[in-house]
Amino acid sequence: MTLPAFFEEDRRLIEATLDRLLPSEETPPTVIHRAMRYSVFAGGKRVRPILCLESARAIFDKTPGVEQLGCALEFIHTYSLIHDDLPALDNDDFRRGMATAHKKFGEAIAILAGDALLTLAFERLAQVPLEAERRARVIEEVAHAAGTVDGMVGGQVADLEAMAGQATATVVEYIHRAKTAAMIRAAVRTGAIYAGADESQLQHLSRYGESIGLAFQIVDDVLDVASSSEELGKTAGKDASQHKATYPAVYGLERSRQMAAELVRRACEELRVFGRRGERLRQLAEFLASRKS
Amino acid sequence: MTLPAFFEEDRRLIEATLDRLLPSEETPPTVIHRAMRYSVFAGGKRVRPILCLESARAIFDKTPGVEQLGCALEFIHTYSLIHDDLPALDNDDFRRGMATAHKKFGEAIAILAGDALLTLAFERLAQVPLEAERRARVIEEVAHAAGTVDGMVGGQVADLEAMAGQATATVVEYIHRAKTAAMIRAAVRTGAIYAGADESQLQHLSRYGESIGLAFQIVDDVLDVASSSEELGKTAGKDASQHKATYPAVYGLERSRQMAAELVRRACEELRVFGRRGERLRQLAEFLASRKS
Repeated sequence: MTLPAFFEEDRRLIEATLDRLLPSEETPPTVIHRAMRYSVFAGGKRVRPILCLESARAIFDKTPGVEQLGCALEFIHTYSLIHDDLPALDNDDFRRGMATAHKKFGEAIAILAGDALLTLAFERLAQVPLEAERRARVIEEVAHAAGTVDGMVGGQVADLEAMAGQATATVVEYIHRAKTAAMIRAAVRTGAIYAGADESQLQHLSRYGESIGLAFQIVDDVLDVASSSEELGKTAGKDASQHKATYPAVYGLERSRQMAAELVRRACEELRVFGRRGERLRQLAEFLASRKS
Repeated sequence: MTLPAFFEEDRRLIEATLDRLLPSEETPPTVIHRAMRYSVFAGGKRVRPILCLESARAIFDKTPGVEQLGCALEFIHTYSLIHDDLPALDNDDFRRGMATAHKKFGEAIAILAGDALLTLAFERLAQVPLEAERRARVIEEVAHAAGTVDGMVGGQVADLEAMAGQATATVVEYIHRAKTAAMIRAAVRTGAIYAGADESQLQHLSRYGESIGLAFQIVDDVLDVASSSEELGKTAGKDASQHKATYPAVYGLERSRQMAAELVRRACEELRVFGRRGERLRQLAEFLASRKS
């Protein structure tokens, strides 16, 4: 599976927009802006912003400014990685082959850089060039998906708690839906809302986002077991050594792979009503499921 | 100086609204909601929400829902305290006479509870019952005041950095304006925006908020030097032992007290144009400057 051609073009727009939306390294207090930029530009795949962009385009051709929404989602994703890597949480020294924020800048600055990226995300969301009613709706959806009730932080907490006990199918599905799928679903949904999707379109895209979000995390779990640290750019095999609740731990490697593939198939079914407009989202779903890192 | 009579009434409305806006302790994952509630209900004075409420009332009598905006500010304030108390930052075991969040729930949950309160603040802000254009403006102002560029996180970073060197008047003023005054000013400003203030009213209230915000932090510094730990409910004298950049460290105790009093006087001057409508804000300014804890 090769990278879809439009992927690289989207990524360039996202990188330029991230740069524009972040305070410069010369803005005081400089250390926090250096730390924020270090983590944002540490080689992320930009999955969430690209999904957001392409979801908007599946609805309407011209959606100027939607990349700003996508970048706000990337700020939130980056904050969650910085805090997740902290000694008190996953205690990871490397991510994508680079020192994690707290290894590079110390724990205090890493905590504050995460806080700052989350805060900046909402400042930039409040500024997206979109009619105010829809802008407020987008902010609400993003905040909910990043929160504790079936959202990202809730998933991280459940993840921490599961490490103490035996992982069950119910627990691991809850964790993955909350920790990863909620924000990926929000990326797809808010892109569509931005572009003026109607309720029926939004429902199809919600199910698409939910399915690829879950598939994405299952693939992550599988890669953690099946890849080397070098391929991943982070410590491989950490889930098992930390007794994390993962799909491979519950279902084994082969069954997990099948489940991810089935989720992608179901996601693509939801795109049928969009005809050719859904083509890029279909390619994205297949790429995300077949990735190697 | 006694508590203004309306203060207690406002506080009751705020407490009830905080309770309504927070997920219940039974909502899974329960531990994070218990931690969020523990810190939010750990005896805060509710200065920011009350200022927000009374600023709105200085502009217009009926401003239903403004207490929700005020409570979102309190969530942000609480998150900043939880993260500030962490071992990697101020390393405080007690606040207001109670164990800090990380002492009670562990560091991982404390970090996530802070994240969750910041996130919830923006979800609730997006839901305030206010015309969408003004709602988006309020969100932008709050996010900016909580951020790194002349905002709260920027002030915390400057505070950390100042501990390494000699505090100067310029540095300590920057820290206090960013760390404390920015959010207090935002509480006053957004309350007024909520109530439909015009630009001239907003300018007077901005200067009022900025002045009392700075005075508030100077009084905090003075209390840290002049009070016992028992009166404060936290470890007194910590600023000096941690070599923090404070007003007493730069100007001495007596001059710091005079400066706070002068700031309150200037704040009250800004209220003159509001006539009798400014009376409660005047009382609040004087109360905040004369408090003993």
